[in-house]
Amino acid sequence: MPKETYLSEKVAEQLMQYIINNNLKAGDKLPNEFTLAEKLGVGRSTLREGIRSLVSRNVLQTRRGAGTFVAKENVGVIDDPLGFAFIEDKQRLARDLMEIRLMIEPRIAAIAAKNATKEEIDKITHLAKETENIILAGGNHIDKDIEFHSQIAIASKNLVAPTILPIIQNSISIFIDVTASKLRRETIDTHRLIVEAIQRGDEIAASDAVYLHLIYNRQLILEKVSENL
Amino acid sequence: MPKETYLSEKVAEQLMQYIINNNLKAGDKLPNEFTLAEKLGVGRSTLREGIRSLVSRNVLQTRRGAGTFVAKENVGVIDDPLGFAFIEDKQRLARDLMEIRLMIEPRIAAIAAKNATKEEIDKITHLAKETENIILAGGNHIDKDIEFHSQIAIASKNLVAPTILPIIQNSISIFIDVTASKLRRETIDTHRLIVEAIQRGDEIAASDAVYLHLIYNRQLILEKVSENL
Repeated sequence: MPKETYLSEKVAEQLMQYIINNNLKAGDKLPNEFTLAEKLGVGRSTLREGIRSLVSRNVLQTRRGAGTFVAKENVGVIDDPLGFAFIEDKQRLARDLMEIRLMIEPRIAAIAAKNATKEEIDKITHLAKETENIILAGGNHIDKDIEFHSQIAIASKNLVAPTILPIIQNSISIFIDVTASKLRRETIDTHRLIVEAIQRGDEIAASDAVYLHLIYNRQLILEKVSENL
Repeated sequence: MPKETYLSEKVAEQLMQYIINNNLKAGDKLPNEFTLAEKLGVGRSTLREGIRSLVSRNVLQTRRGAGTFVAKENVGVIDDPLGFAFIEDKQRLARDLMEIRLMIEPRIAAIAAKNATKEEIDKITHLAKETENIILAGGNHIDKDIEFHSQIAIASKNLVAPTILPIIQNSISIFIDVTASKLRRETIDTHRLIVEAIQRGDEIAASDAVYLHLIYNRQLILEKVSENL
């Protein structure tokens, strides 16, 4: 039996094309419903369904009374875009996500050490300091920690790493608490090593520091996984 | 201004929870609308909107006259889940995606050489042969090629690689034609090397063969990118 496709999905496709062809960027406003419906040659209620479909894919956002906008960040990337919610064994998943982090991040950090601008180095340094302060104050540093690693990915200039890596790190943090007190000292120390290496533009040291950092994290994850076997 | 959330999005969340809590798998059928609406305590038109939202996220599929089902494959993973359509410089994107493939796939192939079952090795061998036949017949082998690499990712037993790697490989193939005739011989030869290494359970040879394979691909991509600079 063929799967059903809704008219709204076709309109969603048209809207995607409209956004891309008109080079609309994150946060840009779309024309009003009347104009859009006319441009796409569809009724307003069908248009609304198409818009809703793109809202659920984080391509668009609607704001009451203000109109329809391209999403502000991560355009087209939904929460959990890789469907991890549907993988049953979350601990094995966390372990395997960490395996992928270990394959990508040391190399990305090396490229960042080579490519980072002065401004990016300042941001990375600042985020490491903020993460450290939260850790020392006994708070939950995971969001700031993800920001720190994301900024390194951005500094690498690779177009894909800043999307993929935060998804992976965030997913691991959902399934396993990696902010345990025993890791706090190692996190501070290895973050500092990473920052210093990037400041010096030292590719090998940056890569090694990220390896160290991730291996401490992985040891904790493997302990937690084996506790539950 | 706060972004608007639709009631349908909340129902979509409830439906997600229902699928996960009831351990429904790809292809499983959901209860009929009447029962579902009652279970979730919502009206049927709101339920339908929630279902549509999950259809657009590839969590559900509806088939006319047959009902609502969990999607058959890649549950929760939409086409272009990482929003590559919204990245303007497609050639730089292809280059950077290849950079990420080079970080992940040699290692995944090594793990596959260690972990592959007899049945998985047969599948990999068969897919390589099929890809080769398409190439020799002058056809477009890209889909079969992606299947071949996906099967290696599956054989690694890493839970994430079989989702991430086909997305990356498929995206590269959309932006740059890597089936050029000059690559056909190298593809056949390096695929054979990969298969033989996995058959022997030789981790280092598997990793090296994938490096070779990807480096030939990358050379072609870099040529195409520089042609267009």
